[in-house]
Amino acid sequence: MLRTHTCGELRLQDINKTVILCGWVQKVRDKGSLLWIDLRDRYGLTQLLLEENSSEAQALLTARQLGREFVVKATGMVIERMSKNSKMDTGDIEIKVTEIEILNSAKVPPFIIEDETDGGDDLRMKYRYLDLRRGIVRKNLELRHRMAKATRDYMDGNGFLEVETPVLIKSTPEGARDFVVPSRLNAGEFYALPQSPQTFKQLLMVSGFDRYFQIVKCFRDEDLRADRQPEFTQIDCEMSFITQEDILNMFEGLVKHLFKSLKGLEFAKFPRMTYADAMKYYGADKPDTRFDMQFVEITDLAKGKGFKVFDDSEIVVGVCAKGCAEYTRKQIDELTEFVKKPQIGAKGLVYVKHGNEGVKSSVDKFFSPEQLTEWLELFGAEKGDLVLILSGETEKTRKQLSELRLEMGNRLGLRDKNVYKPLWVLDFPLLEWNEEMQRYHAMHHPFTSPKPEDIGKLHSHPSEVRANAYDMVINGVEVGGGSIRIHDRALQATMFRLLGFTDEQAKAQFGFLMDAFEFGAPPHGGIAFGFDRLCSLFGGAESIRDFIAFPKNNAGRDVMIDSPSEISEEQLKELSIGVVKSVK
Amino acid sequence: MLRTHTCGELRLQDINKTVILCGWVQKVRDKGSLLWIDLRDRYGLTQLLLEENSSEAQALLTARQLGREFVVKATGMVIERMSKNSKMDTGDIEIKVTEIEILNSAKVPPFIIEDETDGGDDLRMKYRYLDLRRGIVRKNLELRHRMAKATRDYMDGNGFLEVETPVLIKSTPEGARDFVVPSRLNAGEFYALPQSPQTFKQLLMVSGFDRYFQIVKCFRDEDLRADRQPEFTQIDCEMSFITQEDILNMFEGLVKHLFKSLKGLEFAKFPRMTYADAMKYYGADKPDTRFDMQFVEITDLAKGKGFKVFDDSEIVVGVCAKGCAEYTRKQIDELTEFVKKPQIGAKGLVYVKHGNEGVKSSVDKFFSPEQLTEWLELFGAEKGDLVLILSGETEKTRKQLSELRLEMGNRLGLRDKNVYKPLWVLDFPLLEWNEEMQRYHAMHHPFTSPKPEDIGKLHSHPSEVRANAYDMVINGVEVGGGSIRIHDRALQATMFRLLGFTDEQAKAQFGFLMDAFEFGAPPHGGIAFGFDRLCSLFGGAESIRDFIAFPKNNAGRDVMIDSPSEISEEQLKELSIGVVKSVK
Repeated sequence: MLRTHTCGELRLQDINKTVILCGWVQKVRDKGSLLWIDLRDRYGLTQLLLEENSSEAQALLTARQLGREFVVKATGMVIERMSKNSKMDTGDIEIKVTEIEILNSAKVPPFIIEDETDGGDDLRMKYRYLDLRRGIVRKNLELRHRMAKATRDYMDGNGFLEVETPVLIKSTPEGARDFVVPSRLNAGEFYALPQSPQTFKQLLMVSGFDRYFQIVKCFRDEDLRADRQPEFTQIDCEMSFITQEDILNMFEGLVKHLFKSLKGLEFAKFPRMTYADAMKYYGADKPDTRFDMQFVEITDLAKGKGFKVFDDSEIVVGVCAKGCAEYTRKQIDELTEFVKKPQIGAKGLVYVKHGNEGVKSSVDKFFSPEQLTEWLELFGAEKGDLVLILSGETEKTRKQLSELRLEMGNRLGLRDKNVYKPLWVLDFPLLEWNEEMQRYHAMHHPFTSPKPEDIGKLHSHPSEVRANAYDMVINGVEVGGGSIRIHDRALQATMFRLLGFTDEQAKAQFGFLMDAFEFGAPPHGGIAFGFDRLCSLFGGAESIRDFIAFPKNNAGRDVMIDSPSEISEEQLKELSIGVVKSVK
Repeated sequence: MLRTHTCGELRLQDINKTVILCGWVQKVRDKGSLLWIDLRDRYGLTQLLLEENSSEAQALLTARQLGREFVVKATGMVIERMSKNSKMDTGDIEIKVTEIEILNSAKVPPFIIEDETDGGDDLRMKYRYLDLRRGIVRKNLELRHRMAKATRDYMDGNGFLEVETPVLIKSTPEGARDFVVPSRLNAGEFYALPQSPQTFKQLLMVSGFDRYFQIVKCFRDEDLRADRQPEFTQIDCEMSFITQEDILNMFEGLVKHLFKSLKGLEFAKFPRMTYADAMKYYGADKPDTRFDMQFVEITDLAKGKGFKVFDDSEIVVGVCAKGCAEYTRKQIDELTEFVKKPQIGAKGLVYVKHGNEGVKSSVDKFFSPEQLTEWLELFGAEKGDLVLILSGETEKTRKQLSELRLEMGNRLGLRDKNVYKPLWVLDFPLLEWNEEMQRYHAMHHPFTSPKPEDIGKLHSHPSEVRANAYDMVINGVEVGGGSIRIHDRALQATMFRLLGFTDEQAKAQFGFLMDAFEFGAPPHGGIAFGFDRLCSLFGGAESIRDFIAFPKNNAGRDVMIDSPSEISEEQLKELSIGVVKSVK
């Protein structure tokens, strides 16, 4: 090694050692007679010292040429600092430099390389290799490394085999859009990049692999919303000869192991909630349970009292915001504007204040104080509380109220990113009606098994059939989801038919899986975690982008390497394809 | 779990326990009054027993319906076997079955699911999920899992961070052919799949990540030779502030760790050989050093004695095959045919036998016994040995003799797959002349640094410049290779020019890397191991295919899922491409 130590490890007990450090110049302070350099590497910062009269002239000369981000190799002796810096791990010592060598010079970087930077998003992405020098960004990727390591240790310890499944697979129209790869050796044919290794992991169960996992890249060619990436990483898992309970326990164990080993946090058994309850009490299939504020339905009390808005509604439902009775008119107006935003789409907001001056409401023209008090009791509202009510069509209203609930959680500081509330959501519906396509979609995916007790309703009441499907939700974020799979060919064929596949289509796309089911498929099930998301959650961040070394922007571009890009005519010809730009 | 135990774990101390096992029916032996079932899972085989008079009638009835590969759940009591089977881990016990349930039936599989199978390659690939049930295949993938785990443990223990680099990157014409991915959001533009994460790992060094590794899929659209796969896996590594010696030690350590933890083997320091010596003494840059048989050059002795073949040759070189002096005419003819095969291309083979009847040679018309004896001495040939000699143009002749040497190693049983001989090959040439393109190619890749002492020859004698490049070779297989990289923009620009890039081309393709070098790039270097190859070597197998769960055939097809395949017109249109099949 060009160095004897890193910039993060020297302490008082190293005093008088002659050391060699390598790193980047974070800062130079030249006071004339004394010159200090903060030298940085992945492991920390160490202060170098040169003195006008006692240091070598050559070393001083070199030191005075240094600019920010120069790469240097410095030799010297560890000495105790006069004024110690308790904020730095190496703050008790400094290096009295005898020799300094410039390993590489650096142009002035386009933004400040510190946790707080002046670089905007676009600039930082273009120079991502400089952005990654910032401790705050590098720490995210260190966390990611440790998450992956801890995941593998747990899975290996539980007898799971990591098996690599192929990246060049087959395009299937079900699900999101595939990225495809033209095959040169098979003109006119294409591979697809996997949206998940779903069918392969099921085949591994048919193969008797018993316990499989993989930390694996997956790909979806979707229109990119904020914080979606065309390539993303999953912790993909599957087990045989299990019940749903076994899967829940095994992977609750994984997440507990991650919390314990990475954050020192311990958890009791994760709470569980049915999908139906999640929708009823939180208006979302991924409730943020860091705070309570459950929905209360007052439909029966509110309808038929002459207030047309309620009378025309399928549901009247609200939440109680503790201690908000003294919200001003302006604050209430803000909330009303919030729910009326097009993305949320409510028509208006009704409030009932249980304030110092008694019960006040935006609908007291229609409801007597006694009636309003009856509502408040249902909400468990005490003096000082504010009840916020929406009404309309059930599903839409619940979604709107869910947004309002989260907004109130933010306003009341109830969504602390250092508090973690995991939850299992169970019993998802098997199917979801797609209005546009006029057919059912698989809510999870076509391989999910219906609950045995609901199979009778598959044809008569498809939308009522519940699946053996489960999500793990932490702080309102779906971090993982899975299901017990179908392992019976006949039931799988029925499912494909329900989803609008002809038998020919099913055979063309998934024939290999259905064939496999005829050669002795074991009962099996699994789960997949969104690894990028899990990392950002553990890192206390909103965006997954900071947990990916080289992310793409919202147009799917890597602006650093300038990709995608045009390819040569020769390449196109070899691949038997041509570019056909449609006139827009 | 549906089971209490696996099929591999019950022993004598479990006797009298009531257990539940799940697995596949390997075999049923129905002797009328007694019926045995061998039940198989990933963990082993356990024998189930049913008796005509003492077992439940229902269980017997079910057992008699079972066929090979049925999936069953069996409940019973562990009893001691009458006749124990010492070949099975569970051979001391059997299960007296009380209940048996068919979890899934199975059609008769298309080939026998045992280590020795009657299934040909094509059939086994089509039903790969059944092939993977064979213990011999599954063990390969278990080995792969343990190799990956041990690699990660070592790397993590040495402070390396595993960082995922992107899969959707940018196409560059240098190197092998890229697989490309049309971008829907950027019409007419394409991503490429990485042939290696080379530039990204170098950028991570510029970012100060200091020690990076990744077990990562890479892609090359090459014409598939036997045992090449379009997607393959690398252990990809890079370090900063190092010398070549540091890299060699760190990764020799990795391979030692793998040998120790997976095979219990320990090694002294790996031998090292220069590229020049490898070519001179073995005719190959990846010599198999499990056996000696080094090349001996007798050019000076052999030329000018009137034998035109030698006189017209640049080199006369041979090997000594110990104990082969009594090879028959037929055996010598076989060897001559061998070297004359078109793939090898020698014109003929000269031999000198040091046999019981004295020195005999195919060229004794031209050389006296004294002259031949002088040769034999140079070869260190003793009585009983056979010297085999080729001649011609130096580079070609060495390659031919290398093939002959390996063939003799095979014939003499000197290439035992249970013996491992690792070797570092050092000081590769930086550049390689490409006759067809009439320009230099980078022998390793364009980012490899020349040896400082050879930089002066970059323009005057490019082919003589040696690189800071190294390969790890085990048993004649190149398992890894790497180099110290260029970290200086000017030198990198020079390299691109030498490789025939215009400055514009270099900027368009690698501008981001050259820019990065201006912002403080540290000295760095690295290595990449072919993970599939390393697994097959540890598994004692020739082919990498058996160490890949779902491999592709030589036409790049996955015959199980039938991929690649055609995609819909709608997909093509969305991607702004069309299929253009050229008339052939």
